[in-house]
Amino acid sequence: MADKNLIKHALNVTRTQNFAGWYQEVISEGDLAEESGVRGCMVIRPWGYGIWERIQKLMDAEIKAAGVDNCYFPLFIPLSFFEKEADHVDGFAKEMAVVTHHRLVGDGKGKLIPDPESKLEEPLVVRPTSETVIGAAMSRWVQSWRDLPLMVNQWANVVRWEMRTRMFLRTSEFLWQEGHTAHVDREDALKETMRALEMYRAFAEGPLAMPVVAGEKPENERFPGAVATYSIEAMMQDGKALQAGTSHYLGTGFAESSGIRYQDKEGSQQYAHTTSWGVSTRLIGGVIMTHGDDDGLRCPPQIAPHQIIIIPMLRDNDDDEVVLEYCRTLRTELLALSAFGEPLRVLLDTKATKASNKRWSWVKKGAPIIVEVGPRDVSEGKAAVLRRDRLYKDDGKLATAFTPRAEFVSGAVAMIEDIQATLYAEAKARMDANIRRDVTDLATHFAGDEAGFAGWVEVQWARPTGAALDKIVEQLKALKLTMRNSPLEAAAVDGACFFTGEPAVERILIGRTY
Amino acid sequence: MADKNLIKHALNVTRTQNFAGWYQEVISEGDLAEESGVRGCMVIRPWGYGIWERIQKLMDAEIKAAGVDNCYFPLFIPLSFFEKEADHVDGFAKEMAVVTHHRLVGDGKGKLIPDPESKLEEPLVVRPTSETVIGAAMSRWVQSWRDLPLMVNQWANVVRWEMRTRMFLRTSEFLWQEGHTAHVDREDALKETMRALEMYRAFAEGPLAMPVVAGEKPENERFPGAVATYSIEAMMQDGKALQAGTSHYLGTGFAESSGIRYQDKEGSQQYAHTTSWGVSTRLIGGVIMTHGDDDGLRCPPQIAPHQIIIIPMLRDNDDDEVVLEYCRTLRTELLALSAFGEPLRVLLDTKATKASNKRWSWVKKGAPIIVEVGPRDVSEGKAAVLRRDRLYKDDGKLATAFTPRAEFVSGAVAMIEDIQATLYAEAKARMDANIRRDVTDLATHFAGDEAGFAGWVEVQWARPTGAALDKIVEQLKALKLTMRNSPLEAAAVDGACFFTGEPAVERILIGRTY
Repeated sequence: MADKNLIKHALNVTRTQNFAGWYQEVISEGDLAEESGVRGCMVIRPWGYGIWERIQKLMDAEIKAAGVDNCYFPLFIPLSFFEKEADHVDGFAKEMAVVTHHRLVGDGKGKLIPDPESKLEEPLVVRPTSETVIGAAMSRWVQSWRDLPLMVNQWANVVRWEMRTRMFLRTSEFLWQEGHTAHVDREDALKETMRALEMYRAFAEGPLAMPVVAGEKPENERFPGAVATYSIEAMMQDGKALQAGTSHYLGTGFAESSGIRYQDKEGSQQYAHTTSWGVSTRLIGGVIMTHGDDDGLRCPPQIAPHQIIIIPMLRDNDDDEVVLEYCRTLRTELLALSAFGEPLRVLLDTKATKASNKRWSWVKKGAPIIVEVGPRDVSEGKAAVLRRDRLYKDDGKLATAFTPRAEFVSGAVAMIEDIQATLYAEAKARMDANIRRDVTDLATHFAGDEAGFAGWVEVQWARPTGAALDKIVEQLKALKLTMRNSPLEAAAVDGACFFTGEPAVERILIGRTY
Repeated sequence: MADKNLIKHALNVTRTQNFAGWYQEVISEGDLAEESGVRGCMVIRPWGYGIWERIQKLMDAEIKAAGVDNCYFPLFIPLSFFEKEADHVDGFAKEMAVVTHHRLVGDGKGKLIPDPESKLEEPLVVRPTSETVIGAAMSRWVQSWRDLPLMVNQWANVVRWEMRTRMFLRTSEFLWQEGHTAHVDREDALKETMRALEMYRAFAEGPLAMPVVAGEKPENERFPGAVATYSIEAMMQDGKALQAGTSHYLGTGFAESSGIRYQDKEGSQQYAHTTSWGVSTRLIGGVIMTHGDDDGLRCPPQIAPHQIIIIPMLRDNDDDEVVLEYCRTLRTELLALSAFGEPLRVLLDTKATKASNKRWSWVKKGAPIIVEVGPRDVSEGKAAVLRRDRLYKDDGKLATAFTPRAEFVSGAVAMIEDIQATLYAEAKARMDANIRRDVTDLATHFAGDEAGFAGWVEVQWARPTGAALDKIVEQLKALKLTMRNSPLEAAAVDGACFFTGEPAVERILIGRTY
């Protein structure tokens, strides 16, 4: 819309120039996170952590409403727990942080070392996920069918020793929630698996304004030990797929290795059917790459720590108190309003920084509405209102609207709701436009598109297994492609498998990924 | 009050028989927590974790209201960070979990081992506290006086390799919040130190109904590197002291080792003055040992996950739906009410367990009000109401009150508030009665009181340092006593130091501890 030649964007790198570089700049300029100096671990800064707190608050309410209880399980898992679970211990090799000592001492030469005297008899693994330790607890808690379903969740940090890390998307330590449930039978467990998947879909498309496709992962992409893995996949602005949440039906496998058994109504012993499901701080990466523009993040109002920022234009003179008083009144008026069932979150930014620097700092953070108030606005009873989702006018100038205060206040809730809806609609249109169903040759379609702007391709396939599946996976890998999921809501199949020519049984999405 | 001979308490162990055994039984019978099978790490079960969530919610609001921003910092701290901070590296020896490898592999003989190929160049320590890593971040974030005060907090897990552990009180892994702030000068930092201390005092005596004494720790009990350490100390029912929260003024020492410097208004470089302050899941241990009785926990209403439990007496017959409908209506009526500024939390317990088992299960958990409803109550328009803080009548029978429904509902908020007040008043009277100011000989006073029922002794002292202080500490240690803190609100001193005979300068509390 805006004449791009006139706009000097707030970031140095644009999305089309260098998507990965742009992503890093949004994160650093938006004060979302930064490298910590500890390999693969990030510091989540207040604005980024505030978004995570919003996600936690809204998601936790959904989890509790489903009758799931929050608990807390140990950070450390004894190595033997992994032996129990591993199919083939000798072929096992997994990247995990291993604790081997319990004391630091000086080495007599000015350096600290792990005290050799403090070596643990059994090393401890820092949890990469908690199926094993929660399974052990469930085996103590479940005796009878009356104890089922048993549904627990924890909000926790987990560690996976990633070789190549990227903030929010793939870090050695990350924050997440992991739900774990045990049920009497397959039907009840599958119902819970699908409930969690639908909770994630609605959460992504609601509070995150991030359209996704919910579906089942192909066999080769299943969580190890799962009977079925479902995911929500979101399309980033470079066309790549981000797996944004997963829900697993684990059958009785984990119950067997953990000993989760119950006496059924007839008095015989049965293994429980279990599920697990999780989303993580990766969602924040998804929000950035779904909604960010060349001026930084555009944060959906439902998860913005502050929805409206009021910036008083202070000049160190007598007008200042009048301006501040006007801003305080405006804030009070806005705080009395609610959007999405919660009071508006409104910040009066009185830090000792230049007002124009503040404006651009909040633009880069993606605050949904930025309001500036100077002495002239006070005398005219107005406010200078900037919507973050529509920053520029057609002529490339900032689309600041000088609005009578009462008019702004009375329209604020509708504006907040409209920004949320606009962000979703934009992203949804982009995703829909970039899922192609008419592609006959993947190599041609994705040729010269290392950055992934070609989006996704939906094909129908016969869902082969074993060697036939391996062959497809290899073919795709050669093109740097992966199968994302088989959408739950897809058109009926009709005809031959894209890969094998056999009769197709379902549709599947193919694309590049992170 | 109640005729004890008639009462069959819900626990097997009473407080007077075996306080430590009683404590363990409250925890296991109240479904608060359990051993995890991982050394020193506990599983926090739903009711215990629900109490922690309540503590988090209320405390977090106080922290945010003080202008402190939540962040998240890495779990792992490189060993070199501790070298920077340590005064004497060669004499350093601290119990910490040390990560030395990043991969698990099979050893070819059916066992998993840390892969020798994956040894880290620099071992990582699992954070015991985050001063060093947060200091490193602050050194990046602080440049000018305009950046100060910088106030951050994190809710996190930390690990200290404890040799003797006790659930909630001392576990290898525990959950806490740690606030870290940087200021322009001593005055501003001390103000924040005292603000945090007062926040903890008000929180303990408010939501936790747990009376405490706020004061300064003696020099030998300071946090390493602190210029001054303040604490709140709570008296448990066995008379021992529990350090329930600490707030440290760290001077410029941490700023110097981390490089937190700022340019002041005159343009010269200054080191910031820093503080840190924290409370942990230990608070739950304090609540148990302050309010528990021989029937289990009595949970203060403000931190009870559910404040009112409604138990329908179902008999698998046609009356059931009528009873359930009556209970649902009762719950709806109660949910419309608020206590302590929040809607009442009311659970309708419809699990497939016998109603009388349910009652005792909620008694042991300490739900503040338990309401039972049977067909007869429905026909009479009543409810059988049991207050957890007054479980028995004088004759030793349960003090169940058959109350007209409307009367119960209209009095429910007052009852909730009265239970909170009663728990505090009971504990306050006990603490006050067990602080003795007339003791002249500690050995005699504490003789034969290994369990600690002798409470605390307040004396006046000259606050000696160095060798004179060491001598006092040794004398006390021989009696298994420690100095707790010098109360901020103590009577003026008058006369000689209890220990040295020199002129006293302040009062100090002495007692046994955990």
